[in-house]
Amino acid sequence: MDYYGTHITKLIEELSRLPGVGGKTAQRLAFHIINLPEDMANQLAKSIVLAKRNTRYCEKCFTITDKELCPICASEKRNGTTIMVVEQSKDLAAYERTREFKGLYHVLQGAISPMIGVGPNDIKVRELLIRLQKEDIVEVILATSSTAEGEATATYHSMLIKPIGINVTRIANGVPVGGDLEYIDEITLLRALEGRIEL
Amino acid sequence: MDYYGTHITKLIEELSRLPGVGGKTAQRLAFHIINLPEDMANQLAKSIVLAKRNTRYCEKCFTITDKELCPICASEKRNGTTIMVVEQSKDLAAYERTREFKGLYHVLQGAISPMIGVGPNDIKVRELLIRLQKEDIVEVILATSSTAEGEATATYHSMLIKPIGINVTRIANGVPVGGDLEYIDEITLLRALEGRIEL
Repeated sequence: MDYYGTHITKLIEELSRLPGVGGKTAQRLAFHIINLPEDMANQLAKSIVLAKRNTRYCEKCFTITDKELCPICASEKRNGTTIMVVEQSKDLAAYERTREFKGLYHVLQGAISPMIGVGPNDIKVRELLIRLQKEDIVEVILATSSTAEGEATATYHSMLIKPIGINVTRIANGVPVGGDLEYIDEITLLRALEGRIEL
Repeated sequence: MDYYGTHITKLIEELSRLPGVGGKTAQRLAFHIINLPEDMANQLAKSIVLAKRNTRYCEKCFTITDKELCPICASEKRNGTTIMVVEQSKDLAAYERTREFKGLYHVLQGAISPMIGVGPNDIKVRELLIRLQKEDIVEVILATSSTAEGEATATYHSMLIKPIGINVTRIANGVPVGGDLEYIDEITLLRALEGRIEL
């Protein structure tokens, strides 16, 4: 229905194709954009073009970035003896927000999932093994998700890496901080109990 | 925190300025955009620039559009004797989606709100009165919101227009279709009762 005129309707249409953006949200976003000062609207458009044009994968850790090496792999301040293995660039970002982990990452770009036909060759496993040969790694932290796929991926990597003689660890399962026991599922509670630490 | 590289971080930043888009949503949107085919990403950027550049207000009804007259005012199929007065272009869109109302609109671009210093001169009241003189209007339907501001705006218009001898009506208050009485506030229930119709 074109009651706004072609350009606005087109913008609403384009925006409503974004994930989690329905018709009404798209309309709200479009109106916001239209009401921005012209240079800010143009800036947003330019960011889209530039980010899309310059995006590539880091040659070392395979996270999404815009240079040969991502800022983390390029930094000299990181501890090069520890690699945290994650499924996606978003997971890397999540751990970076903790500001505590100072090692390197390896982004698998997925998890092993026989259900949807994703095997070890479809994710960056081989690239990780090559890194383990070339770099001086002491510990590999498996930080794949706690889903069936993430667990399978972690187990697979553990079997593969342990024989090389590198420490392999897995991030802990447990009650989220601020979490109310009442609302937490039994398996998590059980894992939290198993993983209890001495005070 | 720049763990993605400049261009991606910039895009996430730009997106997170949109209303209702927080950091995580911005990240999800940015990743989606980056994974689009290049022409689709460019298309989105172009839509933003074009919509912003070409946006203006309809010279007759003051809705947001991109020509002198909006598609509704320009249409010959609409009933020119009825004007529905709404606060925003979004409200016009909401009624257009019903596909039943065939009259014209008048978008006030706001509602009278002494609290935030918006008086009759700050919205398109005078423009409406000029239309009522020039056009051959039989009925003005006040479809401002059912908020304090919307009600005040409706009352003000009613006082202004009735003396001219034009029919002035107000859209009904009542129980929303599909609404469970249990969850509906007392004032709405009372209005629904007052506005009951014979079956």
